[in-house]
Amino acid sequence: MSVWAVLAAAGSGERLGADRPKAFVRLGDRPLLAESLERLDASAWIDAIVVAAPPGWEEPAILLAEELGCGKVSACVAGGATRTDSVRAAVDEVPADAAVIAVHDAARPLVADDVLARGLEALSAGWDGAVPGLPVADTVKRVENDVVVETVDRSVLRTVQTPQVFVADVLRRALAADRPGAEPWTDCSAAVEAAGGRVTIVAGDPKLLKVTEPDDLERVAALL
Amino acid sequence: MSVWAVLAAAGSGERLGADRPKAFVRLGDRPLLAESLERLDASAWIDAIVVAAPPGWEEPAILLAEELGCGKVSACVAGGATRTDSVRAAVDEVPADAAVIAVHDAARPLVADDVLARGLEALSAGWDGAVPGLPVADTVKRVENDVVVETVDRSVLRTVQTPQVFVADVLRRALAADRPGAEPWTDCSAAVEAAGGRVTIVAGDPKLLKVTEPDDLERVAALL
Repeated sequence: MSVWAVLAAAGSGERLGADRPKAFVRLGDRPLLAESLERLDASAWIDAIVVAAPPGWEEPAILLAEELGCGKVSACVAGGATRTDSVRAAVDEVPADAAVIAVHDAARPLVADDVLARGLEALSAGWDGAVPGLPVADTVKRVENDVVVETVDRSVLRTVQTPQVFVADVLRRALAADRPGAEPWTDCSAAVEAAGGRVTIVAGDPKLLKVTEPDDLERVAALL
Repeated sequence: MSVWAVLAAAGSGERLGADRPKAFVRLGDRPLLAESLERLDASAWIDAIVVAAPPGWEEPAILLAEELGCGKVSACVAGGATRTDSVRAAVDEVPADAAVIAVHDAARPLVADDVLARGLEALSAGWDGAVPGLPVADTVKRVENDVVVETVDRSVLRTVQTPQVFVADVLRRALAADRPGAEPWTDCSAAVEAAGGRVTIVAGDPKLLKVTEPDDLERVAALL
């Protein structure tokens, strides 16, 4: 079973307030992208990697992969206007005979093999997709203009992370669906769900923090 | 305007796997409770404090307050079977002429004055209650038995924290409501919402982490 990783690294990272795209912001002494790239490359579960880089940053991304000795990187494409566009561009580079596509965000540097293993195990059990999720520790409110309208039943909610793994053909079909005027999907699972795919939650990892705000970089650095 | 703090510290903390209730688990070289107790005592916004301790731990809680020189601690009561029972027992010790009750969880040690200030400002503006909230950074799924059934619109969700501040009489009436057989409220705001009170969200603080799992203690310690 060949497993291809798509590494979504095209985000602008505006909220980080940096002078470069998020994937190239420094985490310690190297670009944020280096961490997830190196970890996916080292994973026994991953056969090859396609990176979706910020448009214009394809070359620096490839140089970085070479510097790190990440021999599994097969291609680096320019990302699109939305995360889904970026993933779609990368998936187009995955060969037709790939069995599984694992989509990961470079914004979550601390990807570990056990999360991937749990997802792949779920696919072996017959699921179309598997996403790492965590229970919600805090009380959750639904708001309208900062007014609380409801306390939500958090026991049925999971905050989800990446890597999200999918049967390759299911993901391809889901991403190909035309939906003019609709809100962009926030993750690949949403596309698969919309296409009728059956997705399960596997145990996530609290260390898989997403870097969004400057403080998040410090928190991830502390966990490194 | 007199502001009384109710410090809910009666949780068992089973998930911490410790040999004592959560409030007395060590954070650095002192009990977890010490951090929030000292901070509330030092707050210019707080006039007096009632602690709800784990049943049987009222005396250690009072000794701790004395050791720390927390002169605002007015009473320490035994907590009840649920968080709401504990808060109710503590609120019963708040004098009738208190204007505002601020309910805080000892499980969130890093309480800071600015969060309290934002809540009190909202009460001054006419709200019945104000709770600190944060936007949800991760995608959120609704699940049934670990199967994803929906991607939730997270833009209308906030994870909420404490301290939650309320007009004292509104909170008292809300907590007095009889609701046999219902699920326990997960926070005081839920009680106030159910009683028809108008609650607003104010900006929360990422450092107001809730200690639930052993890892959380390390994360809080790193922020100290």
